[in-house]
Amino acid sequence: MIIHGDVQSGNCYKVRLLAALLDIEYRWVAVDILSGDTRDPAFRRKNANGKIPLLELDDGRCLAESNAILNYLAEGSALLPSDRFRRARVLQWQFFEQYSHEPYIAVARFIARYLGLPEERRDEYHAKQRGGHRALAVMEEQLQASPFIAGDEYSIADISLYAYTHVADEGGFDLSGYPAITAWLDRVAAHPRHVSMG
Amino acid sequence: MIIHGDVQSGNCYKVRLLAALLDIEYRWVAVDILSGDTRDPAFRRKNANGKIPLLELDDGRCLAESNAILNYLAEGSALLPSDRFRRARVLQWQFFEQYSHEPYIAVARFIARYLGLPEERRDEYHAKQRGGHRALAVMEEQLQASPFIAGDEYSIADISLYAYTHVADEGGFDLSGYPAITAWLDRVAAHPRHVSMG
Repeated sequence: MIIHGDVQSGNCYKVRLLAALLDIEYRWVAVDILSGDTRDPAFRRKNANGKIPLLELDDGRCLAESNAILNYLAEGSALLPSDRFRRARVLQWQFFEQYSHEPYIAVARFIARYLGLPEERRDEYHAKQRGGHRALAVMEEQLQASPFIAGDEYSIADISLYAYTHVADEGGFDLSGYPAITAWLDRVAAHPRHVSMG
Repeated sequence: MIIHGDVQSGNCYKVRLLAALLDIEYRWVAVDILSGDTRDPAFRRKNANGKIPLLELDDGRCLAESNAILNYLAEGSALLPSDRFRRARVLQWQFFEQYSHEPYIAVARFIARYLGLPEERRDEYHAKQRGGHRALAVMEEQLQASPFIAGDEYSIADISLYAYTHVADEGGFDLSGYPAITAWLDRVAAHPRHVSMG
C-alpha cells in the first residue's frame, strides 16, 4: 500500500495518523504540490482531480479524498462505528470538516504559512477568519456536550477535524476562547499511538 | 421522519430524490434560508451549523449534511454498495462534490439565480467559473470510462453530483462541451422512480 502525500498537509496527516493508530504498514511517496507534482500526467492518471493524499492499493486501484481514505482504512476497527446512525454521524462531521472548516482554517494557514501572506491574498486571508471562527464555535458547542466530536468514543471524525484544528494558530486563529476544543486537542494527542504532524 | 429543507436547494433535492427512489415516507418541513429560518434558535438546537437539509428521526435524533443523510438512508439498498472499496469510492465522489464541485457550481447558481447577480458579487461569480469547469472536466473523464460516476451501477454518488450538475446552466455553465456528462444526466433522469427538482 502506497500513500502519496506531503508531510506538511493536514489532509495527508489524517491518513498518516490513522495508519499509526491502527498499525497499518505503508510506503510513503512524497508529492510536492508547490513544485507541480500533482499536475504531472503520471499522477493525474492515478487521480484525475490532481489532489493529495492518494491511496494506492497493491493491486493498483487508487482512492482519493482524505476522508474517503479514512473510511476505507478504518472499516471494521473501533474508530468507525458499525451502528448505522453512529456511522452517519461520523460522516456528518467529516462533511462539515470539508465544507465548513477546511476551506477557512486550512486555506488561511496555507496563505499565511506556505505563501507568506502575499499582498494580493491578504483580503482573502482576512475573509477566512470569520468562517473559521464560525466552524470553531460549532465544534466548541459539540465538544461541550461530548468528549469526542461524534460522541463518547474517539473516531475517524476526530482525526478529520484534529488535522487542521491543532495548527489553526498558523492561520491566525487564537484557540484560547475555545476551552472545550483545547481540552479535546489534548485528549486526541494523549492516545498512546498518536503521532505528530510534519 | 422529517426532512427540513428548501425545494429550490440542490442539497435538499438529493434527499428528496433518494427518498423517491427508495420509496421512503417522510414529512417535509419547509425552511426558507433567505428569510433567516436557519438562524432561528429552535432550528439551531437541531443543527448547530444552521444548514439544510436536516433529517429528524422519529426519536428526535437529527442528522445534518446532505451526503451523510444519503449514506444513512441508503444503507442496505442497491444504491450503496456493501463492498468496502466500492463504498469508499462512492464517498470519494461525495467528498469531491462538496469540496471541488458544489462551492463553484452551486454557489455560482445561487449568486445568479437567487441574488440576481448583484454588482458586488460579480467578480466572485466569474471566479467560480474556472473551478466549476475544472470539476466538470474531472466528471467528464470519469463518465467517459463508466456509465455512472462511481462505476457500473447507479449509486448515491450519482445523486450527489446530479443535484447541482443538472442545473449548472443556471450558474452560467454550458454543458454542451461535456457529452459524457449530458448522456449521464439523461441516464439518471431515466430511472423509473426519478423525481425532478423544485
